[in-house]
Amino acid sequence: MRTFLATIGLITLASLAHAQVRSAEVTSDRRVIFRLKAPQATEVRVNGNWPGGRNVVMTKDAAGLWSVTTAPLPAELWTYSFSLDGAAVLDPGNDQVAREGRRYSNVLLIPGAASALYQPQRIAHGTVDAVWYPSGNLKTGRRVLVYTPPGYEQGKAKYPALYLLHGRGGDEESWISQGVANVILDNLIAQGKAKPMIMVILNANWGESAALNLGGTRVLPAGPELPEAPLSSDYDMGEREIVRDVLPFIESRYRTQATREGRAIAGLSMGAGIALAVGLKRLDTFAYVGQFSSGLFGGSPAYPAFDLESYWPGLLKDPAATNKKLKLLFFSCGTEDPRMPFQEKTVAAMQSHKINLLFKRYPGGHEWSVWRTSLAEMAPLLFKTGY
Amino acid sequence: MRTFLATIGLITLASLAHAQVRSAEVTSDRRVIFRLKAPQATEVRVNGNWPGGRNVVMTKDAAGLWSVTTAPLPAELWTYSFSLDGAAVLDPGNDQVAREGRRYSNVLLIPGAASALYQPQRIAHGTVDAVWYPSGNLKTGRRVLVYTPPGYEQGKAKYPALYLLHGRGGDEESWISQGVANVILDNLIAQGKAKPMIMVILNANWGESAALNLGGTRVLPAGPELPEAPLSSDYDMGEREIVRDVLPFIESRYRTQATREGRAIAGLSMGAGIALAVGLKRLDTFAYVGQFSSGLFGGSPAYPAFDLESYWPGLLKDPAATNKKLKLLFFSCGTEDPRMPFQEKTVAAMQSHKINLLFKRYPGGHEWSVWRTSLAEMAPLLFKTGY
Repeated sequence: MRTFLATIGLITLASLAHAQVRSAEVTSDRRVIFRLKAPQATEVRVNGNWPGGRNVVMTKDAAGLWSVTTAPLPAELWTYSFSLDGAAVLDPGNDQVAREGRRYSNVLLIPGAASALYQPQRIAHGTVDAVWYPSGNLKTGRRVLVYTPPGYEQGKAKYPALYLLHGRGGDEESWISQGVANVILDNLIAQGKAKPMIMVILNANWGESAALNLGGTRVLPAGPELPEAPLSSDYDMGEREIVRDVLPFIESRYRTQATREGRAIAGLSMGAGIALAVGLKRLDTFAYVGQFSSGLFGGSPAYPAFDLESYWPGLLKDPAATNKKLKLLFFSCGTEDPRMPFQEKTVAAMQSHKINLLFKRYPGGHEWSVWRTSLAEMAPLLFKTGY
Repeated sequence: MRTFLATIGLITLASLAHAQVRSAEVTSDRRVIFRLKAPQATEVRVNGNWPGGRNVVMTKDAAGLWSVTTAPLPAELWTYSFSLDGAAVLDPGNDQVAREGRRYSNVLLIPGAASALYQPQRIAHGTVDAVWYPSGNLKTGRRVLVYTPPGYEQGKAKYPALYLLHGRGGDEESWISQGVANVILDNLIAQGKAKPMIMVILNANWGESAALNLGGTRVLPAGPELPEAPLSSDYDMGEREIVRDVLPFIESRYRTQATREGRAIAGLSMGAGIALAVGLKRLDTFAYVGQFSSGLFGGSPAYPAFDLESYWPGLLKDPAATNKKLKLLFFSCGTEDPRMPFQEKTVAAMQSHKINLLFKRYPGGHEWSVWRTSLAEMAPLLFKTGY
């Protein structure tokens, strides 16, 4: 149908970037054929994040069509772009594009067990609301995405809520666009593996009101009332924003379980630092805390040296009390991530203090495959009595 | 802030397509500087939809940086792409991208009176919900975007609703991504020019459940239970879907004014045909009907010859009765659109039957500048006592 419509399409757009030769065709044996029509080009390469995906040279036929076929690829939601005569550009023959802040990449889903949760299925889907909440802290309206699970609107039940934070360079849409968090939750809930929950995805760039590209709603001009470039590593700012502004807004607008046991906070990279700093400081508010690939402990130049005691005074002193409050402390990191040894050191230190935590090592570096897996494995552990 | 974060950004993505030289810089006198780093390229052109924007040649400096500066451009939300050695690609130096179905284009806002409604302002913003409704007609869940105006959640008032349809090749996100319909309504409502209203944006490709690229939620696999490629020009199908499935769903989930006078239907191009066919047939349901650039009357190969009487039996026979039901019949078309003469002929024929209608001619062809203006000028006329 779509092909048919496109063929007789009549809309005049200046830039039909994707009315191109079809590219990123996945064969039955999981090879991928990339194609680009660029008759005058002298060099075209594919740059993908699969093993061996860097600088893959394409070759040109007599008609000016560049192509290359990969080896069979592992199941995953991969991303890539082309290098076309020295410029990094999107593949105009693949209409699947993901965005992380200012950065776009093509998306390539290789089907299989490892990517099954990332594929939308013909099941009930949750609703995703793009809502503006009033930030008293930042003195502006700010955009937050709220996933409510299938059945939410039809019933009267109250749901637990996961507050989820993006990484540096991302925004409130990253967990949807790159992370397919709504698809993962739809699938986990349909399979009975995760409890139906609300998911609240914040913009953790405190200096901006909303994503720079909202599919139409663009960034607000900086106003005199907006504080100048508050750092995301200002965890007091994060605590004020999340606990004093976002959380009460969500709990007044949505049917939430407004208890510690009904709230989780987690994030990736920069957002992992925020989730951990705020979550462990505010165990009066959150009983479930997750951090995926934080650089807080080292391996990232953005942070000062980490000291458990000074970050969470009191947390380690009475492990039994801490463990009683913490229904789940979930740590994860990619095996190739330079943050891994620092994560391991911190995990060992916390375990030496007898703090209960679950530490998961996933293959990969500082990248979305690790974070999607982290969400997919953490979500089933949330809002249950133990782990 | 954003620049700072990008500079120290630590996230590893395979394709940082937009970590490029800044492009599409708008100068104070409304010129635009395009830039692309492509040392090995032999030819780079800009293709934009502003006057003189076709095939604008860029030149290369010694460092391999291609650039060109345009003449001052009129205020508008323009779109463009690059031609890079024969391949049509997005500008990797501009993070503003819009999508229409499978097609992506860069976006370029030239500020001024003509584009003021398209710029997000520091005002109250409506909420945009991405909701899945059960289609009994098509036997699947389908995605619909629902805009609720500022204040909706805080109060108990019932709101009128505009049902809005995209064109061929588009989907339920086109009116947001290319049409900035939510921004236009936010601005019109804040200025007191339009009544606060709900806006319901359907996917009118009856053969698909949802947009092919949902920023993470990708197309559902075709299932045996989904009817095979029902045509969008099957207006009985449109009527069933809109009036029997979408409308009752919306009216059960949102606080709507469930009367003729509380409902409008409008669309562009293909969606204009649907809106007009369904709206005029179902004046028991809709009191406001709008069509922007329909090809129904001619000028488009997709439709058979148009006959007023056979499309809307009875509509013309008693103009007083029709006019009494129709609070607004809004027609618009671009002056350069090949559909214009056919629109004019139809308008003349309807006026000869003494059917009240408002016909607006806007500069431009079959394109989004015309459709955004159409929405911006029609919305203030909706849900009022007359025009």
